[in-house]
Amino acid sequence: MERTITATKILHINRPFKLDCGETLPALDIAYELYGTPSPDNVILIEHALSGDAHAAFYHSGDEKPGWWDGMIGPGKAFDTDRYCIVCSNVLGGCKGTTGPASINPATGKPYGLDFPPVSIRDMVDVQRTLLTHLGIERLKCVAGGSMGGMQTMQFFCDYSRMCSSFICIASALKHSAQQIAFNEVGRRAIMADPRWNEGSYYGQVSPEAGLSVARMIGHITYMSENLMQEKFGRSRKDRHTANIFRPTFEIEHYLDYQGIAFVKRFDANSYLYITNAIDNFDLITSISSTGRTRGQGRGRGDIHDMRPKKGLVITFTSDWLYPPSQGLEIVKFFNALNVQTSYTQINTDHGHDAFLTDISAQTEIIKGFLAS
Amino acid sequence: MERTITATKILHINRPFKLDCGETLPALDIAYELYGTPSPDNVILIEHALSGDAHAAFYHSGDEKPGWWDGMIGPGKAFDTDRYCIVCSNVLGGCKGTTGPASINPATGKPYGLDFPPVSIRDMVDVQRTLLTHLGIERLKCVAGGSMGGMQTMQFFCDYSRMCSSFICIASALKHSAQQIAFNEVGRRAIMADPRWNEGSYYGQVSPEAGLSVARMIGHITYMSENLMQEKFGRSRKDRHTANIFRPTFEIEHYLDYQGIAFVKRFDANSYLYITNAIDNFDLITSISSTGRTRGQGRGRGDIHDMRPKKGLVITFTSDWLYPPSQGLEIVKFFNALNVQTSYTQINTDHGHDAFLTDISAQTEIIKGFLAS
Repeated sequence: MERTITATKILHINRPFKLDCGETLPALDIAYELYGTPSPDNVILIEHALSGDAHAAFYHSGDEKPGWWDGMIGPGKAFDTDRYCIVCSNVLGGCKGTTGPASINPATGKPYGLDFPPVSIRDMVDVQRTLLTHLGIERLKCVAGGSMGGMQTMQFFCDYSRMCSSFICIASALKHSAQQIAFNEVGRRAIMADPRWNEGSYYGQVSPEAGLSVARMIGHITYMSENLMQEKFGRSRKDRHTANIFRPTFEIEHYLDYQGIAFVKRFDANSYLYITNAIDNFDLITSISSTGRTRGQGRGRGDIHDMRPKKGLVITFTSDWLYPPSQGLEIVKFFNALNVQTSYTQINTDHGHDAFLTDISAQTEIIKGFLAS
Repeated sequence: MERTITATKILHINRPFKLDCGETLPALDIAYELYGTPSPDNVILIEHALSGDAHAAFYHSGDEKPGWWDGMIGPGKAFDTDRYCIVCSNVLGGCKGTTGPASINPATGKPYGLDFPPVSIRDMVDVQRTLLTHLGIERLKCVAGGSMGGMQTMQFFCDYSRMCSSFICIASALKHSAQQIAFNEVGRRAIMADPRWNEGSYYGQVSPEAGLSVARMIGHITYMSENLMQEKFGRSRKDRHTANIFRPTFEIEHYLDYQGIAFVKRFDANSYLYITNAIDNFDLITSISSTGRTRGQGRGRGDIHDMRPKKGLVITFTSDWLYPPSQGLEIVKFFNALNVQTSYTQINTDHGHDAFLTDISAQTEIIKGFLAS
């Protein structure tokens, strides 16, 4: 089968960009991919999760693997590129083309490091709004994403409700619980405990790979259901042929080890800090209730109440213990109270939080029906 | 109220001690406490958990806090020192007086570090058997413990079944699941990722505090129920007055930070590695079925089948997601199949795995009844 080749583009914004925290970025790069040609009623904005990027579907030239949600995006798929135009961009604070802590600070000519200002989920969607304006897109048929992508989805839908007809929020939450914050905090601590982190100044040197790897290992435990982990790995062992008894022995140890090593090759430790910080500080209800800041972009509390008929879809997974179904039901309740007609589907699966990436057919059926209705 | 003062004693064993792994320790120290005077039918052996020690009850001279299970052990308490004689010893591989990786290796005159051989739960109970022999104790009314203490409890009860009349196993498992191994492995990795760990050779220098602290933080997430964490901390914040945005802000972050810092002051990182390794490798059914090794101590498969009337009690906690009630039921099933009359109680609590340390009154009622019957 012939592969569709795509490429990530970079939009350079050469004007100041004001952030939620009050600070201003002097300029901004936005990495994005666009599949199809925008029309007033065909654009779907896809939001990625913590470790995702703009490359949501198809293949980059020479790559063996397609984009992170290729199972969901393409001809005839859940987000059908024969019918819809898809946009996806890398988040602010990320490390895949959009400005983040590894980017060059124009004021110093060196990477920002910890001089990069803290970013919020709202900042991320503001950047997307800027991108859409540049692309001439003024209306969205839908905004959709899972996990942190679900948070951006809700924030975008609320802040720019006049633009949006619908949203699809998968395996996400209105805000993090103490336990969800705790898991992220331990990951951050693992990174900051690595001397190579060096208060965020490690660019051009060896990066804090050991710390970032531990952070990713913690993440992977929470992404997988206990049952699936037991079924896949149980107490199986690989042979132990090393002098050090604390090298991985159990299969689950090897799996986590592999995931940690693979991750540090493709992700920046500071971005991990900034993005998880944005996730933990996300609190949709507080965010849209705060009237103190409106930046003339038609946002704020008024906007969400000024809605033409809109609808939402919330999807959760039975075995997702990181973003359990109970948090999905809170989302449904919240949006229905805002008169957004929001439906709910709980998919029966053993794949835990990862199901938003792996359980393609179940999601496809539901999403196709939702988008067609 | 007058405080009962106790002190940890050290038993020096100046002969080789053979381990499960085939290696031999040239000598052995065993740290223990004894409350009362042993008689043929009054001794209860208490087994401690990962971070516990021999100091189970009462006060050390000058201490503000009593032993780790003081709520359960004392006059009129669950383990009533007016009726029973209590023994508790620090585990092999630990860092509270019993020989472990921080102890001096007689062969080199320096701390063992990673030259310390791997130890098993079986080794731990073998050491306790040696201690009991020294104390002239040949029969136990009961052996009891929670978490890793429950593993030792079961191992001791099976390996030395002729000595034991009963066991009480609290919040434990016959063996670790993949997820339980995974949490321990990430903790180990955090320690080993700390350059100060230095392949286990850090004695006399700064220890790998940052890594051990991260390991302890991970542990604390799993010890607390999600509900209790939410109730105690939720999304509450302390003021943020530091330049670094990644210092703790949320109350839950401060709590974990505090727990991490407190732990590194009292625990050895190598002991954390050795003990969690023993926990992950514990597999009671495989252990007692292995006939390849008997060391003339009346152990092995035969012993557990040669039981005079014995009974067991298994306690679990509804909100314990680290050692869930389902694993307690597996223990009940296992021992009943061995004709050990084993009863089961599930305590309704929000305190998670920590309940074995905190939920004193509910446990007291059940344990008193069990010991009296």
